[in-house]
Amino acid sequence: MAKKKTTFNVSKSENFSEWFSEILQKAEITDLRYGVKGFVVIRPWGALIIDKMYRLYEDELRAKGHELSILPTIIPEENFNKEASHIDGFAPEVFWLDKKQGDSRLAMRPTSETAYYEMFALWIRSYRDLPLKMYQRGSVFRNETKATRPLLRGREFQWIETHNAFATKEDAEAQAQEDIGITEKLMHKVFGVPFFPMKRPKWDTFPGAVYTIGSDSLMPDGKIIQQPSTHLIKQSFPKSFGVKFVDKDEGEKTPWTTCYGPAMSRILASVIGMHGDDSGLVLPYALAPVQVVIVPFTGEGVDKAVLDIEKKLREKGVSVKVDDSDKRPGEKFFHWEMKGVPFRIEVGEKELERGEVSVFIRDNKEKVGVDMKSLARTIGKMGVEYDARLLAKADLFFEDKVIDCSDKVSIGKAIGDEKIARFSFCSVEADGEACAGVIEKEFVAEVRGTRADLDEKASGKCPICGKKNKVVVYAGKSY
Amino acid sequence: MAKKKTTFNVSKSENFSEWFSEILQKAEITDLRYGVKGFVVIRPWGALIIDKMYRLYEDELRAKGHELSILPTIIPEENFNKEASHIDGFAPEVFWLDKKQGDSRLAMRPTSETAYYEMFALWIRSYRDLPLKMYQRGSVFRNETKATRPLLRGREFQWIETHNAFATKEDAEAQAQEDIGITEKLMHKVFGVPFFPMKRPKWDTFPGAVYTIGSDSLMPDGKIIQQPSTHLIKQSFPKSFGVKFVDKDEGEKTPWTTCYGPAMSRILASVIGMHGDDSGLVLPYALAPVQVVIVPFTGEGVDKAVLDIEKKLREKGVSVKVDDSDKRPGEKFFHWEMKGVPFRIEVGEKELERGEVSVFIRDNKEKVGVDMKSLARTIGKMGVEYDARLLAKADLFFEDKVIDCSDKVSIGKAIGDEKIARFSFCSVEADGEACAGVIEKEFVAEVRGTRADLDEKASGKCPICGKKNKVVVYAGKSY
Repeated sequence: MAKKKTTFNVSKSENFSEWFSEILQKAEITDLRYGVKGFVVIRPWGALIIDKMYRLYEDELRAKGHELSILPTIIPEENFNKEASHIDGFAPEVFWLDKKQGDSRLAMRPTSETAYYEMFALWIRSYRDLPLKMYQRGSVFRNETKATRPLLRGREFQWIETHNAFATKEDAEAQAQEDIGITEKLMHKVFGVPFFPMKRPKWDTFPGAVYTIGSDSLMPDGKIIQQPSTHLIKQSFPKSFGVKFVDKDEGEKTPWTTCYGPAMSRILASVIGMHGDDSGLVLPYALAPVQVVIVPFTGEGVDKAVLDIEKKLREKGVSVKVDDSDKRPGEKFFHWEMKGVPFRIEVGEKELERGEVSVFIRDNKEKVGVDMKSLARTIGKMGVEYDARLLAKADLFFEDKVIDCSDKVSIGKAIGDEKIARFSFCSVEADGEACAGVIEKEFVAEVRGTRADLDEKASGKCPICGKKNKVVVYAGKSY
Repeated sequence: MAKKKTTFNVSKSENFSEWFSEILQKAEITDLRYGVKGFVVIRPWGALIIDKMYRLYEDELRAKGHELSILPTIIPEENFNKEASHIDGFAPEVFWLDKKQGDSRLAMRPTSETAYYEMFALWIRSYRDLPLKMYQRGSVFRNETKATRPLLRGREFQWIETHNAFATKEDAEAQAQEDIGITEKLMHKVFGVPFFPMKRPKWDTFPGAVYTIGSDSLMPDGKIIQQPSTHLIKQSFPKSFGVKFVDKDEGEKTPWTTCYGPAMSRILASVIGMHGDDSGLVLPYALAPVQVVIVPFTGEGVDKAVLDIEKKLREKGVSVKVDDSDKRPGEKFFHWEMKGVPFRIEVGEKELERGEVSVFIRDNKEKVGVDMKSLARTIGKMGVEYDARLLAKADLFFEDKVIDCSDKVSIGKAIGDEKIARFSFCSVEADGEACAGVIEKEFVAEVRGTRADLDEKASGKCPICGKKNKVVVYAGKSY
């Protein structure tokens, strides 16, 4: 047990970045030693968490009417070329195959608008075909020019992309709001990762979109991490693919389209960063591949009791692992704390005599006695409380991070203090880009846009150019 | 309803190949109009069936101790080059990126031995790390030189690949048997697709393997379709990656490795081919994205009754769809029969009066009355019977297809009759390849190998070369 102090070389609060690199390795989430730069291996523990995320997201998307589909990984260059801003945005990052098809190069998809729209042109005929809401899960590929970081920015990452077509702009915008609702329901409420839905400045809008709503979360070092984005796509984009429909009024129209892209690997980065501590991962009960680990001690009747507990928990749908390996108890505790298993049940003769097992709770490290008769029901209840605790703690951390500022000095101070500066600003249209550039240059911080869920009123004059303020923006350092 | 006769341009028995192409389109399984040759779009109905297959396979693999992982889609050429026979086997089919990493080209994985073994060299140290049983789900890419066929042979397809390492050859061979057991349990018993596990002739062994066991199923046209294969890999393959372990005896050894690759898209082809009829898909109850469709007729109390039925079925875990669209009943029937939904429940005033709904059964097209009070339980029971019927029918078809032959004439006749010829043969080692070549040339049929689950005794002399027979082989036309 003496070894426990050296779990990490640095504590999370001292050096988050180093702690994060270490935990990925020690909790066996990723392996960075694979032989292609920027491509990482996701090990079983990480893959199982991602799998749980996928299932939760897919269930939610299906409940909201999105249909699963599987589109090819390869997209012809000519599809990209149809929307100039889209190809301009993605061209530097595309992996191309070495063989062409005719004159067209072949790309590994960086995102699949240009694959879906080719099919939408074939599938959509009439307003009766709308809304058409589809999704797929899988990898996308981006030859990142920025430095890659495991889970946060890789050359291949695991995501879901929805692609949707609507008869009206209103329907499309309602979809964008529904998407924010899904991020709120899952990433915030279930995974415990709070965020602000931010409408991006014009200069930071997705290539081919009218507007982009990104969800900005925070890492413990105060840096912003962009989580799922929704884009309201310019009509010119589907139009360039010949996507059109005959409306109720018999007029031929172009549908409005949207897309939404939750990246499982990146959300996992937020979950690890937000909840982990100096003993390892702290996983939400709803995401933990193993929710309860049982550590049996030698003693009469223990084996039978453990089998019984395991069976009862399984019947309640709890994911249980019995660690009957020949490791010492201390090693087992250390291992499962590192893995972030929410509850550890210790069973020995002493516990059997009392009719009560010891339950160690991962997040607050408390140990409580639980009556064996009602154990399965109690664990379920404790799981709910556990997730509520993680959520409350994350919310508290998040709320504390936004500082109202009114001038350059206060903006600089907030950002220097690893906070998010909120301030009135001249513009998030093209005419505001120069002022944002000043903030970026002086404070190495980005103007992230305006709240998509609130109508915040601007006041005063721009802290950079002195023109009348039109919007309230948030700025901070980011990943 | 008159339209029903023209469901397909040809009946399945007349021209299976054309029927198969048509059903993929009419049941909205695939769309072949995507702009890259050999790459198909899988539409929601197909994607949902594949998703169910994935979940069943993954549950089974996890229960057998395989760990989910996510390895990169991109593999460096130098990894392939380590095992000469492997690169020779796959090189003609590899898609390469146009950018190299140093001197090494970068491949889109055609299969992932060479990615896993790089990691196995890092993860395996001691016999305590063995067995190491891993898997991943995803796409692989093969620039097929043969003509592509939707679901059957594509340039990208969806599969699971397991990669496993063992301390002994016995353990590895036991894994191969376990894999056959999984194919039997799922593909045969749940999806209703019978097969023979065939140990492939030497000349048809996976590049880098000691031996390959393929599962040969049949399409209604009598052509063999290879389903999941297991390979016992040559030790030289992991050895070339430096995969080694310290055994109990403290000796340094190379582990034995195996892999298993069920391709979901290809199994779906078999499911469609095996069970479908001239009204469309017939999907096993366990695989149908919608297991019960409810068609309500107008009438007093119907809406309420439908809601009630839907709720009760959902509670029993049945996947239900209420078709309350404004289509005519005939159109609805036609649509859901094409989609292969096992049961259609019709609810109208007449049914409510009787307290009994009409249930149309997709495979035998019978209509039965079912007491509304016990409907949910009865449907569950009917689902089990339904799958048992599909299985029995498929088994009967399959059993009928193997013809014992003893000379070239009978072999030719069996193959000409769209059957599988079983006969004693000189050899499935290298010295038998010439005789197999004769069979291939004269009958356009392949010698598929020997049964991996039976020890069939050879007799007599080879029908081609006249040498003493050593093995019993199966030959037939194949996809």
